[in-house]
Amino acid sequence: MRAAVLRDGQMVTRDDVAEPVPLQGQVLVAVRACGICGSDLHFAKHGRELLELAEQVREVPMSGDIDLGADVFMGHEFSAEILEAGPDTTAPPAGTLVTSQPILLSGNRIDGIIYSNTVIGGYAERMLLSAPLLLTVPNGLDAQRAALTEPLAVGVHATNRSGILRGETALVIGCGPVGISIIAALHTSGVEHIVAADFSPRRRALAQAMGAHQTVDPAQASPFDVVRPAVIFEAVGVPGIIDEALRMAPVGSRLVSVGMSMQPDTVRPAFAAMKDISIQFVFGHTPQEFASALAAIADGMIDVTPMITGSVSLDGVGEAFDGLADPERHCKILVTP
Amino acid sequence: MRAAVLRDGQMVTRDDVAEPVPLQGQVLVAVRACGICGSDLHFAKHGRELLELAEQVREVPMSGDIDLGADVFMGHEFSAEILEAGPDTTAPPAGTLVTSQPILLSGNRIDGIIYSNTVIGGYAERMLLSAPLLLTVPNGLDAQRAALTEPLAVGVHATNRSGILRGETALVIGCGPVGISIIAALHTSGVEHIVAADFSPRRRALAQAMGAHQTVDPAQASPFDVVRPAVIFEAVGVPGIIDEALRMAPVGSRLVSVGMSMQPDTVRPAFAAMKDISIQFVFGHTPQEFASALAAIADGMIDVTPMITGSVSLDGVGEAFDGLADPERHCKILVTP
Repeated sequence: MRAAVLRDGQMVTRDDVAEPVPLQGQVLVAVRACGICGSDLHFAKHGRELLELAEQVREVPMSGDIDLGADVFMGHEFSAEILEAGPDTTAPPAGTLVTSQPILLSGNRIDGIIYSNTVIGGYAERMLLSAPLLLTVPNGLDAQRAALTEPLAVGVHATNRSGILRGETALVIGCGPVGISIIAALHTSGVEHIVAADFSPRRRALAQAMGAHQTVDPAQASPFDVVRPAVIFEAVGVPGIIDEALRMAPVGSRLVSVGMSMQPDTVRPAFAAMKDISIQFVFGHTPQEFASALAAIADGMIDVTPMITGSVSLDGVGEAFDGLADPERHCKILVTP
Repeated sequence: MRAAVLRDGQMVTRDDVAEPVPLQGQVLVAVRACGICGSDLHFAKHGRELLELAEQVREVPMSGDIDLGADVFMGHEFSAEILEAGPDTTAPPAGTLVTSQPILLSGNRIDGIIYSNTVIGGYAERMLLSAPLLLTVPNGLDAQRAALTEPLAVGVHATNRSGILRGETALVIGCGPVGISIIAALHTSGVEHIVAADFSPRRRALAQAMGAHQTVDPAQASPFDVVRPAVIFEAVGVPGIIDEALRMAPVGSRLVSVGMSMQPDTVRPAFAAMKDISIQFVFGHTPQEFASALAAIADGMIDVTPMITGSVSLDGVGEAFDGLADPERHCKILVTP
């Protein structure tokens, strides 16, 4: 079957990938849509650094045994149609549209469906999912919008971990897909003052469409000159942004870092200490957050349509990776195998 | 009158300091004891960097208008005896032993009693305090132990901000005066498993005397191989320690940084992100925390006597600064003018 894989830093299409066979507890699904995540772009560029980090770090939920010399499967923001359940496995009937947290259970083994030489992700015609983790897509929601569940769950998780109250001002720095998801989640939580900062006019317009009450172009004014946020969400993920946020943040504010910069970064702890600031680093989502993100989309509480700015076949993944570098062109590109 | 001042990076004694005169709302006091704080040693060494930081940072509770070319008064861990109240000022009678958060109110002006060319600190025969902030030292507590109120309040604040629960394991890295104060505060809060890590046998013994249930010599084993802490208190304050704690910390743990490193520091945010870790930077204390620290000492809940390892006159401050560099010799040295 066909799949787009990472090979020597580039996405290439293969048509000789062995057909996956579901074990007990697994289902074979046909991928209907899979979003391209900024973290996949990061991994294509900084994969070696990330794996070296993972080797050094205790208790990381990431296997360090990925061989970058071999093809790497990716794609963790998917919706898919059930084809066939594994032996002795209860699952929704064939043809059912589902989504799932990107985790594959194989007997006692747990793998992330994120970067792997063996576990196939959503940039493929077919893949395996774990029957106990399947969520049926409700309300006739289409596969495209259902594929936004995973990125939205990241926003829900960041919002939950921030502990933000409705009356507190939120500043979201960076309005790529992660920032936009946070804005949507904050809006759904009833936060009454959401300010979004991004250099791109298109991204600022999208932020407003998704729930921001106010937007700031950092080229015109520091967002910290415009508002005095209680909670700052950093959804940029480049070295320097954490230090700059600490420098400008109000006394006692909370910084939530969702950008997950993969490179070493310099901060001046005294900035944060003198102002009693906390930094909450966040990653991923809980099963509950994932389910609530799907429900918010399917119930119409969040219309993710404006986030979907493009769609490509498996052959177009490489070009799409390049296109996502331009913030004026795209938010979320879906791969529809 | 006499005072020890910072001049060209060294502590020197002057005997020609102008006698301070209390304004309305102020009292003149005779300093009875003043602890030497690690942050004073830091400031003597890294003062210029700290002031440059303060210039750049929004909303810091620190004036950047200190001239390091002129003498700097320091000393913020004091107990003192009331001599005389300013005009139209209500204060306890002369001879009363008091302490106070290190803040001086002068009309509408608020100054920290910490580093200043003009506001005299506790390394002096006499100083000014703010009448509304005075706390009378109760229960006949002596001036030496009362002077430990401020450092203990730092530990109380760090404990409060951590949100630690009694059943959670605390790891305190670094058993200098800050680490020891945190241990004492955790112990008083009823935390049932306090682990203290320090290279110095003497500091480990002191940690145990002050409430640690277990100690670790990092030269023998990483503390993270010995316990799996829910909350990690970093009381070291040297570059690299935050990154190392993030690298080793358990998933979902909370890091409380009390060390307040004044130099730029390199961290790898991905370490923290992959494990959903928070860093709470802390500084100072609230009036309530300061009062509760004094009460804990005066009521006998915390015996700070083992922390006091030396006492010097104003002339001995310079030598004491040097002596504090050796962890085997000292925890807290008091200046008794």
